[in-house]
Formats: sequence, C-alpha cells, structure tokens
Amino acid sequence: MKPKPEIMLTPGPVTVPPFIIEAIAQPVIHHRSTEFRHFFAGLQADLQFLFKTENPVIPLPGSGTMAMEMAMRSFFQPGDQVGILAMGKFSDRWLTYGQEMGLEIVPVRLPWGESLELEVLEGLLAARPNLKGLVLTHCETSTGVQIDLEEIAFVAKDKCPGMLLLVDAMSTVGVLPLYTQDWQLDVVVCSSQKGLFNLSGVAFAALSPLAISMLGIPESDDAMHLGHYWKYLAQGSFPFTPPTQLFYGIRKAVEIIREQRLAHRWNESHRLSKLFKKAVQDLGGSLFGLANCDVVTAFSIGKGDQDEIRLKLKEKGLVLAGGQGQLKGKIMRVGHFGWEAEVGILLVELKTIVDGK
Amino acid sequence: MKPKPEIMLTPGPVTVPPFIIEAIAQPVIHHRSTEFRHFFAGLQADLQFLFKTENPVIPLPGSGTMAMEMAMRSFFQPGDQVGILAMGKFSDRWLTYGQEMGLEIVPVRLPWGESLELEVLEGLLAARPNLKGLVLTHCETSTGVQIDLEEIAFVAKDKCPGMLLLVDAMSTVGVLPLYTQDWQLDVVVCSSQKGLFNLSGVAFAALSPLAISMLGIPESDDAMHLGHYWKYLAQGSFPFTPPTQLFYGIRKAVEIIREQRLAHRWNESHRLSKLFKKAVQDLGGSLFGLANCDVVTAFSIGKGDQDEIRLKLKEKGLVLAGGQGQLKGKIMRVGHFGWEAEVGILLVELKTIVDGK
Repeated sequence: MKPKPEIMLTPGPVTVPPFIIEAIAQPVIHHRSTEFRHFFAGLQADLQFLFKTENPVIPLPGSGTMAMEMAMRSFFQPGDQVGILAMGKFSDRWLTYGQEMGLEIVPVRLPWGESLELEVLEGLLAARPNLKGLVLTHCETSTGVQIDLEEIAFVAKDKCPGMLLLVDAMSTVGVLPLYTQDWQLDVVVCSSQKGLFNLSGVAFAALSPLAISMLGIPESDDAMHLGHYWKYLAQGSFPFTPPTQLFYGIRKAVEIIREQRLAHRWNESHRLSKLFKKAVQDLGGSLFGLANCDVVTAFSIGKGDQDEIRLKLKEKGLVLAGGQGQLKGKIMRVGHFGWEAEVGILLVELKTIVDGK
Repeated sequence: MKPKPEIMLTPGPVTVPPFIIEAIAQPVIHHRSTEFRHFFAGLQADLQFLFKTENPVIPLPGSGTMAMEMAMRSFFQPGDQVGILAMGKFSDRWLTYGQEMGLEIVPVRLPWGESLELEVLEGLLAARPNLKGLVLTHCETSTGVQIDLEEIAFVAKDKCPGMLLLVDAMSTVGVLPLYTQDWQLDVVVCSSQKGLFNLSGVAFAALSPLAISMLGIPESDDAMHLGHYWKYLAQGSFPFTPPTQLFYGIRKAVEIIREQRLAHRWNESHRLSKLFKKAVQDLGGSLFGLANCDVVTAFSIGKGDQDEIRLKLKEKGLVLAGGQGQLKGKIMRVGHFGWEAEVGILLVELKTIVDGK
C-alpha cells in the first residue's frame, strides 16, 4: 500500500523530513556496546539542550500518552492529593487516568477554550497547600489554548516548593519557549512526532532533582516505572533493547534545531501562528476560544459542519485535524510546526471555499 | 555520528534491511483518517497471518518488555495464583516483575541451560489445579534454550482449560513454528526487532477468546492496559497517535515473509542453527546447556574469557552477544535470523582465533 502524498497540517503527527529517515536508516549499534554508550551520552546532551536543563532527561519507548501515564504512576500512589488541570480532550485524559489510579484528585476544570488564570491557581494552592503534585498541560491541542507556564510555575513553586510540577509538554518542546530548569518544572513529558518532527514511537521525561528525590526505584524490571530507566540512565545505559534507530532520528532533529537555533524556531511558531490567525479572521472565519496558542489554531470558517469542509480540503491533499468530543464538527485545527508555503496553499483553498458559499 | 557498519549476529536487534527503511519512509497518514483504518485492517490481517490466529493481535508502541509487562498487568491482579517459568535472564524478569506486582507466584525455576520437562509441568498442574495463569518463555535467548511449546500448551490446556497461557515469544514469531490458535495459546507477545527484522519500538500481543473474556476494559485511557487497545481495535482504530511508520515496516516484513513462505523461514532458522552448532563443535567449541534452540546458539570456544574473544571479533566488524548474569564471560551468543554468508565469515574468524591459541 502506497498512501498518496498529502500535506499534513495537523497538530501532529507531522511530516517526517527525509534527513530524519536517512538518520534512522543508519546501521543499528548494539545497546550493550561502548559505541552505544557514547551515542547515548550524546543523546542525553541533546535532550538536555532541548529541554533547557542540566538534569537527566529519560528517553522512553512508546507514545507520549504512555510516558505521561508512566510519570503519573511513578510519582503518585493511590490516595495522594494531586491537582489536575482539565481544559480539553487531552488534559481531561490525565484527570480520568488519575481517578482510575485512585488518586485523591483536586480537579481544576476549565470550560474548553479558556486558559488557567493565576488567581484560580492561587485560590487552589491556598485551599490545598499540601498537594503532592500538580499536573499541567502546557498546550491543550484540542482547543488551541496554552497556559502561561512560566508564571504558573513561578507562583506554584513560590507557594508550594515541595509540590511536584508535572507538565504535559507533548506538543510544545521545540515549539514554545520552555525552560525546564529555570522554571523549576519537575517532570516534563514530550513526544517525538510534533515539535521534533520525528516518527511517533518515542517520548521523553525530563526530571528535576526534586523529582529524582521523590522517584522510588523499583526492585524488579518494571518497564513502566521511570525509576527503572533512571537507574540505568545513571549508568549510561538502557534497561532493555532501546529504539536506537528512533533515537538516531531524534539526535538528527536536535542537530538541525541547534543549527537553526532553538529561539529562532520558537519565534517562527509565533510568527506563523499570528499570520495564520489573522488570515483566518480576514477570510471571515472565527478563532475558537482564547486562541492564544502558537502550537495550533482552532477555528471555524464558512457555515455548517467543519468536518465537511475538512473533507473538501482533504480531496485537495490538505490534511487538517477536526474538533474532538464536544467540538466535533465545530472546528478545524492547524498546527504551526514551520510549514510556510503549505499554509499559503491552505489559505488559498479556504478562500475558494468561502467564496463558493 | 555515523557508526561504522558492523555485522550484527546477536539474537536481536537484527540489521534492518533497506526495503524496511524504504517502507518506513513513506508519508505518514493521519490516524483518524479512512486511509488509516484501511491500512490498520491490513496490518491486523498481516499479524493474524504471522501469529497463525483468526483472533485479534494488538499492535503496541514500546518495547517487548513493556508489552509483556502490560499483558501481565492487564490479566493478573495482586493475590492471583500464577505459575511462572524461570530458566534464564529474560524469563527470570517475569518472575521478579510478578513478585513486585504482588502476585502469588508459583515459580518453576530451572537451572540455566535446561528446558521444561512435561513431567515437571504435570506435577505443577496436579499440585496447583487452580492457577489463574501460566507464564511461559518460548525461547530463553540468554541460554539458547527453547521449550516444546506445542506439547506444553497441549498438556496445560488438557489439565487446566481455564488457565490463561501467557507466552513470551519475543524472538520466536517468524522464526520457530508457532500456531497461536491451534495450540490454544491465550496471549502471545512478540517484539519487532528480532524475527520481524524491524526497528525496535513496537510489539504485539495476540489474544485468544479466553483472554478477551478475561480482559477487563478500563474506564480511563489507561495506555498500559491491553483492554484499552482492544476496545479501540474492535472499532478498527487506535487510542492515541500510533507509530504508523513503524507499522509500515511491519507490513513490509510480513509481505516479504508471505512471499518466502513462513514455513520456509522456520526451516531456514532450523537449518542454519544446526549447521552453526555443528561447525562450532567441529572447531572444538562447546555448546552451552541443552542447545536445542533454533533462534540462538550459546557457545564457548577456545580458552578463557569469552568476552575477550567477542572483543576480537568486534574489531573484525562481527558483533556477537555475550553471556548475561551468571554466564558473563562464559559464553557467546549468535542469533539465527537468516544471515548465511555472515555466519560463514564468523566461522572463519573463529577458526583463526582457535588456531592462534
């Protein structure tokens, strides 16, 4: 089966550039060899650069969802009081997962399209000063809303320094400014197929010294516990056969990001997002909710079911994401991972659709 | 970093052929599209062919270890009586993992190098007729020993039809004869980087109707619970961003296996393994333990530390695996995944080493 080439404009997975595939195609090195240790040390340095931290970043096989749930399992036990921000399809997931884990959850539920206000956070921390952890989602891609992570982390750590800040940064590492260490984030989880323009299949968890001090190390080979990976990482190795070739792709992505400069990429997401949001409004479209996010724009255009418009765009080879849950058929979503010409093509098609009505 | 090309003769990960990389390099299709559903249905048919079953086979992101532990978590709860066969480094892992899970484990511990005798199994089942499950490892790659899975499953199902048979077949699917459905295996777990000559990063769990009936479906998006994937698979979809491109590689591998015929590949592993074992003995080397396995040969040659010999071979570009745990420095291990010329080169080098001493 050869899928016909399409322009993927969704907020992930993104099109994987040929140089990433080329990196992945390199001969595999055995994970118990000296070469692997050298390579793995280089990967660690790359990840520390990317996450802006001098502390360990654990590379994990699997998806971002798996990594985030592994983090929750590794730090929280049933009965622990944990605050969870729920503001859309993806952040809601951590809430239901935490409930099933048996945590004593203090939910911060926001209407879809809104972001977390500092006063709400301050109220929460005043009422619950003994939270063991707080789970935040940097960008809620289902609604196109981001939180002011720097401010929020500052307030959270100011009021509750011992509280573990666990951040879903799936789509934001490499896309939005994010300083793991300076902002005192304790656990930052990211996946490979968004800002790192790689194949889906690996994820990462950056850990602070506080996180490491709170991380139990399981006695068995518990492949779903971060402590297990941390134990091996501290020795420069990996507990079982790692996805070495996927790691090659990640290192290549970081090489490119280093060349282009990380801050430049952050600026580009911002510029493209602003341009696109303005163009949508110029075409008579509406932005959904706060629309404050540089990772993704959620919008509607023309009248009627947005999924029908998406279908028309798909026939032209342009793949957008739709609305999820309560937003099904009501919005479309475009990611801002650097495709400039492609967004131009999309805007032309959107104009045609608008004019045709 | 460009690693210099080496010949990987380890029992996994294996060298990934260029046509697999080419398949992976195809443009990604979005996982909420109709195309993905078609592709995913094709993948399911491929996996059913490979595992010899008409029942569902769940593709999972992550490593084989993760998939096996996910299976254990999904079917067993703390306090459950579960038999676990421990006969080497890898099968021992399931024992320690089960202990940490809080299972009431009935261990079947064998000296490394030995295999499971039917009488031992019969004794176990007579003494413990109410086991909820039995965890078996088809091939223990750390010792180069396989079990007679067909016979063992026959006896197990004859005596205890309601007992869940969970099989670690990491290295054996596509390599050894394995009939999931006919042999009444309930859960068969395999990884991508051995018999399927793919990148490490995905794994599979084939489920029987008994397994499905015992599989609870979590209410939350528990990405570590097979029930979660099964729920989505039943609708032809996947719970979160799947490793689609890694799946392309798997489909390509099955296409090749279909062309070559599965039984032919089984025969080839057998033939190569027999030839290699004979050649090692002809060179004065010793096979370790029962040496009844067509996936891998564990052996020693010449005098002294086998890791030193491995180092010499590595300088020649030949990568073998060493002994693990109690076997460190005592054996070398070679996988039999179809490299004929390469094994010839290895034998020449082994002869040089033996003659030089």
